Amino acid sequence: MQLAGCNTGVKDRNRVGTYNQFAGRSVERLAALSDGVFAVAMTLLVLDLKVPAADAVQGEHDLWQALVVLAPRLLIYFMSFMTLGIFWIGQQTQLNHLARSDRDLSWIHLAFLCAITLTPFSTSLMAEFIVFRVALVAYWLNVLVLGIIMYAAWRCSVRHGLLRPELTAALVAAMERRIVLAQMLYGFGALLCVFSPYWSIGFIIACQLNYVIAPRILGLDRL
Amino acid sequence: MQLAGCNTGVKDRNRVGTYNQFAGRSVERLAALSDGVFAVAMTLLVLDLKVPAADAVQGEHDLWQALVVLAPRLLIYFMSFMTLGIFWIGQQTQLNHLARSDRDLSWIHLAFLCAITLTPFSTSLMAEFIVFRVALVAYWLNVLVLGIIMYAAWRCSVRHGLLRPELTAALVAAMERRIVLAQMLYGFGALLCVFSPYWSIGFIIACQLNYVIAPRILGLDRL
Amino acid sequence: MQLAGCNTGVKDRNRVGTYNQFAGRSVERLAALSDGVFAVAMTLLVLDLKVPAADAVQGEHDLWQALVVLAPRLLIYFMSFMTLGIFWIGQQTQLNHLARSDRDLSWIHLAFLCAITLTPFSTSLMAEFIVFRVALVAYWLNVLVLGIIMYAAWRCSVRHGLLRPELTAALVAAMERRIVLAQMLYGFGALLCVFSPYWSIGFIIACQLNYVIAPRILGLDRL
Amino acid sequence: MQLAGCNTGVKDRNRVGTYNQFAGRSVERLAALSDGVFAVAMTLLVLDLKVPAADAVQGEHDLWQALVVLAPRLLIYFMSFMTLGIFWIGQQTQLNHLARSDRDLSWIHLAFLCAITLTPFSTSLMAEFIVFRVALVAYWLNVLVLGIIMYAAWRCSVRHGLLRPELTAALVAAMERRIVLAQMLYGFGALLCVFSPYWSIGFIIACQLNYVIAPRILGLDRL
Repeated sequence: MQLAGCNTGVKDRNRVGTYNQFAGRSVERLAALSDGVFAVAMTLLVLDLKVPAADAVQGEHDLWQALVVLAPRLLIYFMSFMTLGIFWIGQQTQLNHLARSDRDLSWIHLAFLCAITLTPFSTSLMAEFIVFRVALVAYWLNVLVLGIIMYAAWRCSVRHGLLRPELTAALVAAMERRIVLAQMLYGFGALLCVFSPYWSIGFIIACQLNYVIAPRILGLDRL
Repeated sequence: MQLAGCNTGVKDRNRVGTYNQFAGRSVERLAALSDGVFAVAMTLLVLDLKVPAADAVQGEHDLWQALVVLAPRLLIYFMSFMTLGIFWIGQQTQLNHLARSDRDLSWIHLAFLCAITLTPFSTSLMAEFIVFRVALVAYWLNVLVLGIIMYAAWRCSVRHGLLRPELTAALVAAMERRIVLAQMLYGFGALLCVFSPYWSIGFIIACQLNYVIAPRILGLDRL
Repeated sequence: MQLAGCNTGVKDRNRVGTYNQFAGRSVERLAALSDGVFAVAMTLLVLDLKVPAADAVQGEHDLWQALVVLAPRLLIYFMSFMTLGIFWIGQQTQLNHLARSDRDLSWIHLAFLCAITLTPFSTSLMAEFIVFRVALVAYWLNVLVLGIIMYAAWRCSVRHGLLRPELTAALVAAMERRIVLAQMLYGFGALLCVFSPYWSIGFIIACQLNYVIAPRILGLDRL
Repeated sequence: MQLAGCNTGVKDRNRVGTYNQFAGRSVERLAALSDGVFAVAMTLLVLDLKVPAADAVQGEHDLWQALVVLAPRLLIYFMSFMTLGIFWIGQQTQLNHLARSDRDLSWIHLAFLCAITLTPFSTSLMAEFIVFRVALVAYWLNVLVLGIIMYAAWRCSVRHGLLRPELTAALVAAMERRIVLAQMLYGFGALLCVFSPYWSIGFIIACQLNYVIAPRILGLDRL
């Protein structure tokens, strides 16, 4: 993505003094659109949890059985919600460190949101075909694309000089390391499907739980 | 949830001066994401109100009958909307009293939003199987989890020192009391399903109406 | 709705200095939640426009015919979008004139949003059963409830002293007149279904168009 | 649309000093509603990507085949997402240059959002009937209407004096030129369906990619 080279034309066109106000608001609206897309994607995930058909349920026991059958989907649901949560916090951290945005960066974040809207689809796919590797690989590809775009967004922010001036080089590098390490763990998790998709899902959930709440063993919280 | 212990690493990593701006915006974006999730969840609830099939309706009377049949679902819909409204106001009050947020608190609120997105499912379940206790218990568990997470969020805000300094200890305690008392009422309501799910629903709606608009008898508005 | 009487307890509980910040933010979050609910409701309306089934369409002509059949639904769709737009602008005007909010007013606006989320349902109903008076009356009841709640919200804002101080009594009265007159027109439109539902829909759309873009004959733009 | 003539009545009614605060907030809430509608429309697009039916899939290979069949829909999905992204950035640029809004402009932007909510429908139509010209023309009409409304919104902002004072005449003209040129390209793309709908879709995607990321040959990035 040769984004840096074509930037000059954009800047010339906007040289007219209002550029700063324009770009300043831009980050806010990007954040607002992102929050909207995440909110809808998070809530659409739940549409996979279909209420059991009324005519198949004759009594309390039937209903209980029908809910037990839903349990694996609920697990996938929590995993996807965690994935979305992790990427939401990651994108938020990036946006919070921007002094302003430009059109190129806006488009990279729109591509990111596009991949986010695909999450309910790839989640449904995995919930429906949990035993098939193709479904798991499709899910992992979705996560991989999200990681790559986040990395590109951060690099673009750095190269176009859009970050807040007080940001240290160490912090800039830490953000990149964080994305790369997380993607390596997701990739390793996906590889485990050579043995069984369940191993993959188990490993991914374990990593995510470690990231979110767990005692953060092994220094993984540094990534 | 041992959240306090692991916080030091996060703080160290962000010691670089930008932490305050980061955390400051964080509350706003958490609020924006929450408003989005609540808005979608509140609107998805209405998808349970299915328009009667056209071929089953031959005249005005048929349509009227079909709408009368929908009445119990409408009641459940109002009850769920009230539940969401109560939790929205509760979460809003917490967020409004935060001076800033951190990653742990963000995750607790994300867990809260996850439970909120489950509300349309548990509401559908109850609307479909209003006579079954399992459906009512599932709904109540959803509400219970919401209450527990709200309590955890408040405790975390207090322990991590994230609240606005002007907040008195009395107000902090009032917030906790409010959550516990509300959950006791929900729990008692759920217990009433030993007699009949209708008793449970009636009691819960009565409590909620009392909370929302009623003359607030019995000092219940103090909770 | 005896809202004024019970307000004292609320104020006492929040006497602790933070009340103003709390209420100040409250209007913003109420606005954010409202924008979210309106956005979802406006977009859900389009789900009524179902893409024709692929196996019923053999050629360009079939597809054209299928789209022509959708035309009445499209009309209803525009009418509902206009209705939502009118209420969005109305609610926005109210919120913009608030200096702060309180819990009672928040609940009135939540009730308003609840009625807004019912709009996709009542619109679907009318789109499906355009020849039946029951469907039209259900739609009108929805609009009537919206009007009543907006009126109650304005009265509550006035009585609880929540409006910006610079607001003149003339403007306060103008807002009330506006709601009452609009509801009288909707009511007259609904009455026309004594003749035919088509008369009702035609009259309502004519009024709304007059409100939105037309030359504003008859001084109707003063309402 | 004779919007300028009827504006005086509106101004008179609001002469009461609060007009500026009212209109000031108005732009923000218009932006918030727009972000919400765009977020929901972008996410609803994905509902077209239906997970393959479980009983038609016996093994990994079947699932892979089923996903390959979905590929054209995925292409349409990306095209639509790009279209929405382009219009989102365009509308955002307009709103960012507004000093304030008025009721007429609000209604033009509401009409714009109405056309945006139709996008998931026209996209579904094209995804379902990719070989039929009627579907392509319907999609193009949707895009044309979006362009016309954006042009009207900009003209209205200029005529009503709502733009920020620092905006130069050159920038005002550039915005109009941009819309007209983009619409000419879309129109030419739609015309290509005389040969084949695939040519149209290919040309439109090529233009959009050029607009979004490509080396911006031919000076097309100046539009």
